[in-house]
Amino acid sequence: MKKLPKFAVLGGGSWATALVKMLCENLGEVTWYMRNTEALRYISEHGHNPNYLSSVSFNTAQLRLTDQIDEAVSGAEVLIFAIPSAFLDGELSKISASLEGKVIVSAIKGIVPESGKIVGEHFHDKYNIPYKNIGVIAGPCHAEEVALERLSYLTIACEDKARARQVASALESSYIKTRVSRDIIGTEYAAMLKNIYAIAAGIAHGLGYGDNFQAVLMSNAIREMKRYTKCLYNIDRNINHSAYLGDLLVTGYSVFSRNRMFGNMIGKGYTVKSAMMEMNMVAEGYYAVKSAFIIKEGFKKTVKTPIIDAVYKVLYKGANPKKVFLELADQIS
Amino acid sequence: MKKLPKFAVLGGGSWATALVKMLCENLGEVTWYMRNTEALRYISEHGHNPNYLSSVSFNTAQLRLTDQIDEAVSGAEVLIFAIPSAFLDGELSKISASLEGKVIVSAIKGIVPESGKIVGEHFHDKYNIPYKNIGVIAGPCHAEEVALERLSYLTIACEDKARARQVASALESSYIKTRVSRDIIGTEYAAMLKNIYAIAAGIAHGLGYGDNFQAVLMSNAIREMKRYTKCLYNIDRNINHSAYLGDLLVTGYSVFSRNRMFGNMIGKGYTVKSAMMEMNMVAEGYYAVKSAFIIKEGFKKTVKTPIIDAVYKVLYKGANPKKVFLELADQIS
Repeated sequence: MKKLPKFAVLGGGSWATALVKMLCENLGEVTWYMRNTEALRYISEHGHNPNYLSSVSFNTAQLRLTDQIDEAVSGAEVLIFAIPSAFLDGELSKISASLEGKVIVSAIKGIVPESGKIVGEHFHDKYNIPYKNIGVIAGPCHAEEVALERLSYLTIACEDKARARQVASALESSYIKTRVSRDIIGTEYAAMLKNIYAIAAGIAHGLGYGDNFQAVLMSNAIREMKRYTKCLYNIDRNINHSAYLGDLLVTGYSVFSRNRMFGNMIGKGYTVKSAMMEMNMVAEGYYAVKSAFIIKEGFKKTVKTPIIDAVYKVLYKGANPKKVFLELADQIS
Repeated sequence: MKKLPKFAVLGGGSWATALVKMLCENLGEVTWYMRNTEALRYISEHGHNPNYLSSVSFNTAQLRLTDQIDEAVSGAEVLIFAIPSAFLDGELSKISASLEGKVIVSAIKGIVPESGKIVGEHFHDKYNIPYKNIGVIAGPCHAEEVALERLSYLTIACEDKARARQVASALESSYIKTRVSRDIIGTEYAAMLKNIYAIAAGIAHGLGYGDNFQAVLMSNAIREMKRYTKCLYNIDRNINHSAYLGDLLVTGYSVFSRNRMFGNMIGKGYTVKSAMMEMNMVAEGYYAVKSAFIIKEGFKKTVKTPIIDAVYKVLYKGANPKKVFLELADQIS
């Protein structure tokens, strides 16, 4: 086992479960918080999560399971948050333990609806966490493939590269390769934008566009992502690295992506409301596109984002998807 | 009908058929050459190609069908070649009519096995065609989607942009959008390299790698393509344009790609010979990787091409795919 700080994973979903699995490859003990007490009891008895990635077996002697968020926070030095962004603010409000000195790692990749900010910024602004203590785990990484131990690559971003390396070291294994980066803003926004592009891919598919168009859409999406992230934080960034392009592709080409599925329903004629009801959940890109649109309005320079604009018009302005995509088709190339 | 020069399409396959369909949207008459006399007779009687894209109906009054290549060459000003690269040299040797002053457009995208060159270079070197008279039609474009009139984008490359615009004008329609470019070398090599990357994607899939790895592989492939094409012809090229990245994606993510299928069989343990026999054809990437490897050896600067190297070792050096891909996995990120 490696000599590393104490880690806690916060969240009970598939990505949280995958992260606990990765950490258990390297650490004697991993703290795992989720609010679902029932699931915790099941895990401690049967050694696997009953609701997500149930094929993954844990050695329960390695797990410190808790439904008390304060216990998780005070018992670890590195806190990996894998709670859906829509529930994050509510969970954070339960914390009374101090976050001072903790390394906060976001494995969430979405907009916090209450603040309209990405997770790193939310922690920085609301909880006064310095950026050097904030990290991001970026894909491309479907949790289901981690469960199967299929080779996957993660990028760990943190302004403090030594810290990023520490987190990387805790996650890497025979089936997880890691890279470190300083670009927390770029990786987090890229991960958020890709959900918008996955919705666009879904809408196009629902409207009957084919693979030729999808390839053009993705090649325009990565150029749009480059322009957008450059306006946010202008560093020397190769947008074709796995954390940006790879993450876009794994989502934009996945038929299992909830964002793509949501878009597909919209393209097929569902209203936003009925698509949400049918899916029984809200696709992260739904929040993301509103924030991306608002944030862009604040940029000093005008930036061309025809795909974001199209998805925004369809989801928030009640525009006709068919008409909007006919216009979009003329703006991309 | 637009005022345009006379066009001939040479080839009888699905891409040739799709090109004739596109041209018939704009031209009163299109010359169509193929060596299969049987198929020509069928087309003139029934108005569709019996072997490829048979759902596409032609107005036979628009078609000048011929099995005499000289007739096609002398009767047109723009010659679009859509003959598989493996048969191109044999077909060209039949021509006795003059090619002087003709615009030669390659819709082939592959290496001519006899010369080890891309089609444009082959015409330039062997037939003395000046580069300003050579054009390239680049995708991303599956012919099957053209048949369905699904919106697709083509890039027409020619040093002489006015000429490129003329060809673009003859091809574009309600379901075909076009762009012009001066980068004939880059677009043609990109189209050739993508077949190698599709083989790599197939090998990975055959070996059991998943979607996470595929996304990382594609994001490394586009960076490799950028480095490679920069060494060939260093112009200000945005590798994320549809003609490069889009074309890579439409092939690399297509389960119908012959190159990907070929790679998949190799990954699953077939020998090169048995995979070829089973497929009853040779995947273009098979020739491409040998040429790409040899051409690269001639570069003034060493260029890192781990994916090309891996595919080359597997297909030509009898290396074990599993072992080669384990090494490759450490070279990409």
